[in-house]
Amino acid sequence: MFIRKLLTAYDFPSELKSMDLREMELLSTQIREFLIDSISKTGGHLASNLGVVELGIALHRIFDSPRDKIVWDVGHQSYVHKILTGRADRFESLRKSGGLSGFPKREESPHDSFNTGHSSNSISAATGYAEARELSGQDYDVVAVIGDGALTGGLSYEALNNAGSRKTRLIVVLNDNEMSISGNIGAIAHHLSKLRASQKYLNLKNYLKRILRNIPAVGDGIYSSMEHIRDTLKFITFHSGAIFEELGFKYFGPVDGHNLREVLDVLSIARLIDQPVLVHVITTKGKGYRNAESNPGKFHGVVPFDPATGRLLQSGGARNATQVFGGKIVELAEKDPRIVAITAAMTDGSGLTAFAKRFPERFYDVGIAEAHAVTFAAGLACGGMKPFVCIYSTFLQRAYDQVLEDVCMQNLPVVFCVDRAGNVGADGETHHGLFDLSYLSHMPGMSVLAPADDRELTDMLEFAAKTPGPMAIRYPRGAFLQLLPPQLRSLGKPEAEEAGGIVHGKSRRLREGGGLDIWAVGKMTAVGLAVCDILEKQGIRPGLVSARFVNPLDEAGLLSAAARYKKILTLEDNVRRGGFGEAAAAFLSGHGGSDAAVKIIAWPGCFVEHGGVAVLMEQYGMDASSIAEEAVSFVGEEPCERKKSCESEKGTA
Amino acid sequence: MFIRKLLTAYDFPSELKSMDLREMELLSTQIREFLIDSISKTGGHLASNLGVVELGIALHRIFDSPRDKIVWDVGHQSYVHKILTGRADRFESLRKSGGLSGFPKREESPHDSFNTGHSSNSISAATGYAEARELSGQDYDVVAVIGDGALTGGLSYEALNNAGSRKTRLIVVLNDNEMSISGNIGAIAHHLSKLRASQKYLNLKNYLKRILRNIPAVGDGIYSSMEHIRDTLKFITFHSGAIFEELGFKYFGPVDGHNLREVLDVLSIARLIDQPVLVHVITTKGKGYRNAESNPGKFHGVVPFDPATGRLLQSGGARNATQVFGGKIVELAEKDPRIVAITAAMTDGSGLTAFAKRFPERFYDVGIAEAHAVTFAAGLACGGMKPFVCIYSTFLQRAYDQVLEDVCMQNLPVVFCVDRAGNVGADGETHHGLFDLSYLSHMPGMSVLAPADDRELTDMLEFAAKTPGPMAIRYPRGAFLQLLPPQLRSLGKPEAEEAGGIVHGKSRRLREGGGLDIWAVGKMTAVGLAVCDILEKQGIRPGLVSARFVNPLDEAGLLSAAARYKKILTLEDNVRRGGFGEAAAAFLSGHGGSDAAVKIIAWPGCFVEHGGVAVLMEQYGMDASSIAEEAVSFVGEEPCERKKSCESEKGTA
Repeated sequence: MFIRKLLTAYDFPSELKSMDLREMELLSTQIREFLIDSISKTGGHLASNLGVVELGIALHRIFDSPRDKIVWDVGHQSYVHKILTGRADRFESLRKSGGLSGFPKREESPHDSFNTGHSSNSISAATGYAEARELSGQDYDVVAVIGDGALTGGLSYEALNNAGSRKTRLIVVLNDNEMSISGNIGAIAHHLSKLRASQKYLNLKNYLKRILRNIPAVGDGIYSSMEHIRDTLKFITFHSGAIFEELGFKYFGPVDGHNLREVLDVLSIARLIDQPVLVHVITTKGKGYRNAESNPGKFHGVVPFDPATGRLLQSGGARNATQVFGGKIVELAEKDPRIVAITAAMTDGSGLTAFAKRFPERFYDVGIAEAHAVTFAAGLACGGMKPFVCIYSTFLQRAYDQVLEDVCMQNLPVVFCVDRAGNVGADGETHHGLFDLSYLSHMPGMSVLAPADDRELTDMLEFAAKTPGPMAIRYPRGAFLQLLPPQLRSLGKPEAEEAGGIVHGKSRRLREGGGLDIWAVGKMTAVGLAVCDILEKQGIRPGLVSARFVNPLDEAGLLSAAARYKKILTLEDNVRRGGFGEAAAAFLSGHGGSDAAVKIIAWPGCFVEHGGVAVLMEQYGMDASSIAEEAVSFVGEEPCERKKSCESEKGTA
Repeated sequence: MFIRKLLTAYDFPSELKSMDLREMELLSTQIREFLIDSISKTGGHLASNLGVVELGIALHRIFDSPRDKIVWDVGHQSYVHKILTGRADRFESLRKSGGLSGFPKREESPHDSFNTGHSSNSISAATGYAEARELSGQDYDVVAVIGDGALTGGLSYEALNNAGSRKTRLIVVLNDNEMSISGNIGAIAHHLSKLRASQKYLNLKNYLKRILRNIPAVGDGIYSSMEHIRDTLKFITFHSGAIFEELGFKYFGPVDGHNLREVLDVLSIARLIDQPVLVHVITTKGKGYRNAESNPGKFHGVVPFDPATGRLLQSGGARNATQVFGGKIVELAEKDPRIVAITAAMTDGSGLTAFAKRFPERFYDVGIAEAHAVTFAAGLACGGMKPFVCIYSTFLQRAYDQVLEDVCMQNLPVVFCVDRAGNVGADGETHHGLFDLSYLSHMPGMSVLAPADDRELTDMLEFAAKTPGPMAIRYPRGAFLQLLPPQLRSLGKPEAEEAGGIVHGKSRRLREGGGLDIWAVGKMTAVGLAVCDILEKQGIRPGLVSARFVNPLDEAGLLSAAARYKKILTLEDNVRRGGFGEAAAAFLSGHGGSDAAVKIIAWPGCFVEHGGVAVLMEQYGMDASSIAEEAVSFVGEEPCERKKSCESEKGTA
């Protein structure tokens, strides 16, 4: 009889090893209840985790983590894995500052064998592990768990191609839930659906007898009997036409990923095979929770919700940058038939749902394939179109070379709409958009813009639509954009208030002052405003500028500010190195503005962990009151004092 | 009777349209003679171009460029295309400053439909063209020509996956010469060799009859007769198991790429099919020139040679950085069994031939798959190895995200050996390594080093082998590294002369002086030395420092230099934005060093064209005498003068 105890009371993963099938099935129910209850309170990734409950149990039953290495592609479906490796008691802190990460983290647990977050890298990492095992004479299994969506990424294919030819023992579990975040797209998806539809169950006994003959210890635990293994083979389809076979992988499947027995069986067999194996498991996103099954997109990454009704407990709040973009792009496309929109599996997240409905023939979802998205856009531009490529800041990193070589080098009119720029909060290290100003601004010919509020975003999109050449507009996640108080608008130079509002390479002055000028990039302009309010109470009345352009710099504006204010404080939601502040300081230093001091406020040169955005900003001195403190001390510094501090630094170095 | 005239005398491509098969065959011989003669004088890519002579003729015969778009993947095999589009007369200037580019360039000719250089982007670009055609209601054909090597790149697969599901008319010509630069590797290569070996010639008449039935005008020119088309089908293999079929492409082949008749036939048929088609053409690299056929690697990219013997006319000259690396890595690996080396299809170019022979089990060529190479290395590092990843500066751009997310974020001990950094000369825009300091230095935890000479490179490799954490060492192409005069070595601080020579984050002073300090990165140190010599004659005796570390900066060294010299001149073979000079200037500006002026010498924010390295450096003011002039004027500047120049700039803004 199975005694139900709290999930937190188990000694996982070892206690799993002694469970029988019935106990594991009950455990799967308990894990689902726990996930729904827990994520309804904290928010997080629900649907994908509900889909891999049986798979997670089977993996930890058959394999021996942390000796065996399990690499979870993308990683947001690692909650079950976390529960089964003794972290159920930390789920209250999920994705909070100092709490459990929503992704695998080697720093968090020895069971997390590779930090994932971006898609499609698990097979490469697992191949590396497998080769290291061979070289170091160790003996462990390596398993990559990858979704069908992640399989559209070229990196997966590069790894399959490499692993399939090296023939080193390795297991890839294809977790096929028939969709990536936006619904899967591409030829590989058709191929998978063909495999799913295949009903050609072959008797593989002879095939496996041949393979198994030379293996001395076949399986272990409940799968120790050869006879048993042979009896479980009836469900295995061997589809010889599969792409995976052509790439050198032994293919097993498809298997019902919610039939625990079948998943256990196929994994126990896959483990015995001394070459690369691909196990094709069919799962249902949101499995076991009706609200999520019927709307997996809504429950992909979710805010806290009412578990009974599935109703989200936080409404969207203020209109966010994504929505502003989503509305404006439709408006622009109505006027200009050359405008096309491209997303890499993020239709809804990028605000393109309305566009896709209104202009289906001008909308392209290329799957999780950012590099292709960009070069495809370059081709569209060569063919006379005006592509808007919508990729989050962190994911556009995957197309760095294509942006540089295929778009900028041909000076093509491609507009990059870089959503989720800056600190994104709960998703943490792998998802913050803290590098885009640095990696885009050194690309020749690339204009890099950052709107301070929704009006500037609208104006910049208008500007982008009518301006040739490559352009990136970066804006933050969620409801960060606060409409700047209307009275500030009137301070803009007349040229900046023309139709479209934006003048190439020109900043926008929001506030005149003296003794200190604050140059803020994008959403940091709102922080700059708050800094001004704090400083005013202390008798300092700084100027404030929305930089608007990070490339090219508003050189004339900077020189004039340097001459008048003498002290420039720059604010940006990006790492310091290669960002706006460094470029501005270096420019001034080389152009006689060096008698103006520049203080740079930016994220430091380390990876910023997950947590609330406000908490992180305070922690890293990026909030208004920390910045105001810095500003007061900056204003108080005299050149000779600065010299002293420099001398003291020298002394300690 | 075919009257032989000079290649330069033809009116190509139009004159090709009236040639019969025999004339075209004679033309192919003439083109081969021209290529061998011309490239033996100028140097360039020979073997790959000799392999596509018939293919190039057939493409321009069947398709109507520039109306039809031909995208040449990688692009160095576009010489035949250039000859057939009226550029034979410019081959004397090939790859020289102001001369014909070695790659397709939209700026050079309307027949060059997409600028290529990096591998694997042609199918993406062609898919973009094809979609643009549909949207704009135009009617043209789009052909991507891609090698089997480029097909190992994940971007190709992303594009096949996307194009295969969209079903838009598009032709991909797979130019299968059974090798990429280093010999092709991976499962896809096995797949292709299976296809090549397949002798299953099917009668496709019925299949094609069905397709052709609804097409009113079938072909044109010499292929206008239905009957003729049907008769030519006997050579077409329809291999239903091909990956390409699974990905949604209609597959035709394999076809002998040197049998002009067969290539013409298959292209004329492919052109009639209203969906994505892949035409598999088998060619021989170096075809028709025995020296190149037997050693295609040597004749891939070649210096001038004696056409009769194939003997190269330039010997290697001084030992170059690649050779220094190639020797040292073997020595290090002898001592440390954890060291493994990874290349992306550049074994010889990266100097790894000796390593691959000595340690075959610790050597990995993953094909043209830079992103996989990096994440694979991360997996190897997680498994306890010490990977050295050897990828040229320009190609490492393709793995930006993997370096950042998979290596740096996990602080893994992966060493990036970044060859061909800086200006590489004749290959031009797509191949200069002018961005690596900018794209690597903002990655948290990444140490970025640049050796000034071969001794520093050796020391840095030694340092890298024993130092944990991610590290990049960037060094230039060819014999640029000149041994710094031995007397300069003695000026190094004692700590820098310890075993291994390198201290983390510390520069190396080569010369004391006064009034001006030159901080040079990598090979620019030799230029800095020459600048010192020039300046000494003018009574200025500058200090000189090999910066060694671009990240982290030697902050103490910079502060001390700023305090003593007041004027700092930085030299780097990288774009200015995000490079060493900006970081140094910004650091000093924020740390009380702002009373020292910083002048940055770097490549400007534009794409630098092809040409001789020395010519380009002079042209862009990066040579010693240009820099010396700048230095003299910089030393002569007074703060008040600088103020004036700033004011005047304001006035013009």
